[in-house]
Amino acid sequence: MMVLITYDVNTETLEGKRRLRMVAKECENVGQRVQKSVFECLVDPAQFAALKRRLEKIIDKEHDSLRYYRLGSNWHGRVEHIGAGQTYDPEGFLSV
Amino acid sequence: MMVLITYDVNTETLEGKRRLRMVAKECENVGQRVQKSVFECLVDPAQFAALKRRLEKIIDKEHDSLRYYRLGSNWHGRVEHIGAGQTYDPEGFLSV
Repeated sequence: MMVLITYDVNTETLEGKRRLRMVAKECENVGQRVQKSVFECLVDPAQFAALKRRLEKIIDKEHDSLRYYRLGSNWHGRVEHIGAGQTYDPEGFLSV
Repeated sequence: MMVLITYDVNTETLEGKRRLRMVAKECENVGQRVQKSVFECLVDPAQFAALKRRLEKIIDKEHDSLRYYRLGSNWHGRVEHIGAGQTYDPEGFLSV
């Protein structure tokens, strides 16, 4: 199933930047980064449970916000993109 | 139906900050801000079409990325939140 993960973290701090990098790394193992802090992950229920455990160890629950949206398996028709590149390049600008 | 809107914009520039404020204002008319640049909007098809037209006039399509995820009407069970407040307070910290 497709799970959309949105992560809100203050990246004005080095620690926040580091947590975002770590969250991105975990999510990119099972999906793609579509915006700076938005990830589309294709997982089965066991993978999703394992991913959640790993992410919830990384984030600072007092300050960061993490949201999961289960889009199910019939998700292609539910998504629409406008504007710059459909994937996110953390090294530079948004890329196509 | 519930539409999740994620907006990626560089808020290190004044213009980017301004665009995020304008997008937030439009989205908050029909929903709530759940993260800095993530909005959950409850709209019917006509409202959704009108909202899209307004948002797409605000954003800079060369640099910003805007994504719509139609979560449908049976969306409550699809969403899970971890960490700081479930709504976002742009004036300060995340609030409960």
